[in-house]
Amino acid sequence: MSDTTAPPRQLHLNINVLHSGFVPSAWRLPDADPHAFIDVGHYVRVAQIAEAAKFDAVFLADNASIVEQIDFRPITALEPTVLLACVAAATTHIGVIGTASTSYNEPYNIARRFATLDHVSKGRAGWNVVTTADLGSARNFGRDAVPDHAGRYARAAEFTDVVKALWDSWEDDALIGDKVSGRFIDTDKVQPIAHHGTHFSVQGPLNLPRTPQGHPVLVQAGGSADGRDLAARHAEAVFSASQSLEESQAYGRELNARAAAYGRGPHAVKILAGLTTIIGATEADAIRRRNELIDMIPWSYNINRLAGILGVAPDRIKLDERLPDDIGLPNKGNGNHTFFNATLAQARLHGYTARQLVYALAGGGGHRVVVGTPEQIADDIEHWFKAGAADGFNLMPDALPSGLQDFSEGVVPILQKRGIFRREYEGTTLREHLGLARPAGRKGIAAAA
Amino acid sequence: MSDTTAPPRQLHLNINVLHSGFVPSAWRLPDADPHAFIDVGHYVRVAQIAEAAKFDAVFLADNASIVEQIDFRPITALEPTVLLACVAAATTHIGVIGTASTSYNEPYNIARRFATLDHVSKGRAGWNVVTTADLGSARNFGRDAVPDHAGRYARAAEFTDVVKALWDSWEDDALIGDKVSGRFIDTDKVQPIAHHGTHFSVQGPLNLPRTPQGHPVLVQAGGSADGRDLAARHAEAVFSASQSLEESQAYGRELNARAAAYGRGPHAVKILAGLTTIIGATEADAIRRRNELIDMIPWSYNINRLAGILGVAPDRIKLDERLPDDIGLPNKGNGNHTFFNATLAQARLHGYTARQLVYALAGGGGHRVVVGTPEQIADDIEHWFKAGAADGFNLMPDALPSGLQDFSEGVVPILQKRGIFRREYEGTTLREHLGLARPAGRKGIAAAA
Repeated sequence: MSDTTAPPRQLHLNINVLHSGFVPSAWRLPDADPHAFIDVGHYVRVAQIAEAAKFDAVFLADNASIVEQIDFRPITALEPTVLLACVAAATTHIGVIGTASTSYNEPYNIARRFATLDHVSKGRAGWNVVTTADLGSARNFGRDAVPDHAGRYARAAEFTDVVKALWDSWEDDALIGDKVSGRFIDTDKVQPIAHHGTHFSVQGPLNLPRTPQGHPVLVQAGGSADGRDLAARHAEAVFSASQSLEESQAYGRELNARAAAYGRGPHAVKILAGLTTIIGATEADAIRRRNELIDMIPWSYNINRLAGILGVAPDRIKLDERLPDDIGLPNKGNGNHTFFNATLAQARLHGYTARQLVYALAGGGGHRVVVGTPEQIADDIEHWFKAGAADGFNLMPDALPSGLQDFSEGVVPILQKRGIFRREYEGTTLREHLGLARPAGRKGIAAAA
Repeated sequence: MSDTTAPPRQLHLNINVLHSGFVPSAWRLPDADPHAFIDVGHYVRVAQIAEAAKFDAVFLADNASIVEQIDFRPITALEPTVLLACVAAATTHIGVIGTASTSYNEPYNIARRFATLDHVSKGRAGWNVVTTADLGSARNFGRDAVPDHAGRYARAAEFTDVVKALWDSWEDDALIGDKVSGRFIDTDKVQPIAHHGTHFSVQGPLNLPRTPQGHPVLVQAGGSADGRDLAARHAEAVFSASQSLEESQAYGRELNARAAAYGRGPHAVKILAGLTTIIGATEADAIRRRNELIDMIPWSYNINRLAGILGVAPDRIKLDERLPDDIGLPNKGNGNHTFFNATLAQARLHGYTARQLVYALAGGGGHRVVVGTPEQIADDIEHWFKAGAADGFNLMPDALPSGLQDFSEGVVPILQKRGIFRREYEGTTLREHLGLARPAGRKGIAAAA
C-alpha cells in the first residue's frame, strides 16, 4: 500500500434544520416538543449532534411571511443570522449557513450581517442567496404584487455583486493596531466600492474588516434558468432538488458548464442534493414510520399544499385520483419551479393518485425521500455520490432531532467505514470543510491583473 | 426596624461596550488587544464581568458607515443583533440592547430580528431606536444626501409603530401545539396589522410568535425636540447625555411630561445618563490615567473630531485658544444636537482652550466624564440618583475590560452597601431588571377597550 495514494473524494453533509423536521406532522411525535421551532436549545442540540457526526454545516431556510398552514405545522420563525450566532457559540467546527433574501433587504446590511457571523464563528458562515416570490412577503414590504421572476433575479445578481465587493473593501492586512506608533488601520487598504448599478448605489467601504474566510460561503438553491445563472455566477454550493440520479448528474454538468462560461474553474460549484431520510431497523419499520407520520397530517393540509405547489384550486385535487391532466403548463414564474416540476414528475412517472403522491413525497413538495435501513440509505448516498450525481447532501430528516440521531448513529459510521466521509474535521472553517479556496482580496485581485 | 419598610429605589446600570473603551486611545493600553473590536470573546468577557456585577444590560451602539477616523481608533464594526446573540448565549441574566437604525432598514426585518433576539435570550432583548444622520451612511443606501431631520424622525415614529404592531400580531396564547388533536396554532389569534401609512405599508402578521417580554424593551437616545418626541411616544428607557445635574433633572421632567401627554403613566421613561468613568486608587492616580490616555491620542485626531462635532473647519480650532466665538448657531440638523450642545457648553462654561476641553471630555464628544476614586465615583452616582437626575447610568468606562473591572470591584460594592444597587438579580428578563411592565398583547388591548 503506497502512502502516495490520493485520499478518496469525500462527500459533504449539511443538516437542514427545518424546525421539528421535514414531515409536517413531526411535531406530533411522542418525543417532539411543539415549541421546538422557537426554542434556541432545539437548534443547538441538533447542531451539536451534527457536529459530533462531523457534518459540514447547519443550514437554515427562511421566509419573510407566513407561507405555511400554521394551524397544522410549525414555520421558519426565528431569524437565521441571530439564531446561527447562538449555534456558533455552542459549537466549534460545524459551519452555519443562513438564508437571506435579496428581494427585501439592502446589500450593505446583508454584507455586514453575514460578515459579522463569519467573524463571530471564526470562519464558519455561509449565506444562502434567495429571491422571495410569495405575495404575503411582498405585502410585508410595501408592495401589492410580487416582482417578476427576471426582475427578482437581476436584482439578486447585482445584490450579490455588491455584497462581494463590500466584503473585499478591506484588504486582509488593513488592520495594523500598532500601539507604539498609534497607527490603527492603514486607510490605503480600505477603499470605497463606488457601485452605481441598475438596482443599487452603494459607496462603501463596509464598516467591518475582511472576515476569516474572506467571503462567507455563497450558497444558492434556484432551479429555474435565472436561478441557475445566478448560481453559476456566484454560488460555491447549491442546494438542489432532483428526484432522479440522471437528472442530478445533468443538473451538475449544466451548472458547472455555465460557471465555466463565467470564467470559473472546473467543478466550481458543489452540488448538495436535498435528501429526506426516514430510517428504520428494517425496511418495514421505516415504511411504518413514514406511514404513521403521514397519517398524522390532516388530508385537508396535504390537498392545500399540493394545490399550492401545482398552482391549481384545491377542489381539483381528488385524493384517490391522478392529478388533473391539464396541470403541466409552466407556472406563472412566481412559484417554486423546482418543486412544481419535481412534484409533477413524480406523479406522472409512477401514475400516482394524489394520496399515493403524498406518501411518496413524505408530505413534502419536491425533495427526494429515501425510506429504509441505515445500510439502504448509505447505499443510496454512496451510489449517488460515486455516480457524480452529487458532491453531498442537504439532509432533511423526517423529524428532529430523532431522525438526525438515527442518521448519525446508523448511516454516518457506514459512510466512514466505506471511506467516503470524514472521521475528524481537518480544518476549522466552512471553506476548509467544503474544500473551497479562500477568495483573494482586493490586493490579490490587483496583483493578478 | 419594621419589615414593611419599602425597599429603597434601585438604580440601573448598563455597560456600553464601545469596543476597546470610551477614550479613543484605549486600544493602546498595555493590557488591551487591538483586535478586541472584532473579537466576540472581548464582548463576551465584558458582558460576563458586568453580569457578575449585576448590571441590567449590555448596550451596543451602531453605525451604517465608517464614522470615525480609523487610522487612529477602532469603530463599531460587528452588527449588534448577531453579536448580542453570542453574548446572550454566554450569559444568563444580563439584558442585551442593540442599536438599529430606522433610516435604512425595513420594519418587518427589524421586528423579526429583535423578536428573535428576545426569544433566544429568553426575554432579555432591547432595541435602541435611532435615525442615521451621516452622509456616508446615506451613500451606502442609494442616497446622495441625508434625509432631513424632521423626515427622519417622522419615519422613525411610524417605523416604531409598525414594529410594535407586528410584535403584537400574535396573541400570547396563539400557540396550541396539541399533539392529540393536531392543532398547532390558533389562527384566530394571529392577525394582520394592515398598516398603510406615510412611509410604510405592512400587511403582517409577523412570522414569529409573540416574545417572552411581549415587546423587547424600547430604548432611545435623541436629545433634539423630534428625538424627545419619539422617546416620549415609544421609549421605555433613554440613553441621555447631560453635563449637569440640573440639566438632567429638567430633561427627565420634560420627557416624562411629554410621555404623559401621550397618555403614558407617570415616570414612564427611565433616564439612563451617559457616564464615562476613569478610576484610580487616588484622585491623582485617576487624573494621571486620564492624562496618559489623552496623551496617546494624536492631536490631529482631537482637532478633527472637535471640528466635526462643532461643524467648523478643522483649521479654525487652535489648541491653546478658546473656541471661535461664532460657534453657537444651531447646527444644520444633521449632526448630533446633544453632542454639539454639550461640547460647546463645557467649553463656554469653563472658558476652556481646545486642549483643555479635550482633557475635560476625555477625548469624547459630549458625555459626562467623572475622574476619581471608587468612593468619589460612587458619591457622584448616588448624588445624581438621589437628586432624581437619573434612574441609572449607561456606563462607558475609559477602557474595556479594565475600566469595567475597576468599576465592578471598586464602585459596585459601595453602591450595594449604600442599598441603591442590587446584590442579586430578582428576575430573569430585562423588563424585570428595569422594573418595566410587560406590554399587554392584542387580546389585552381588546379587553381593555
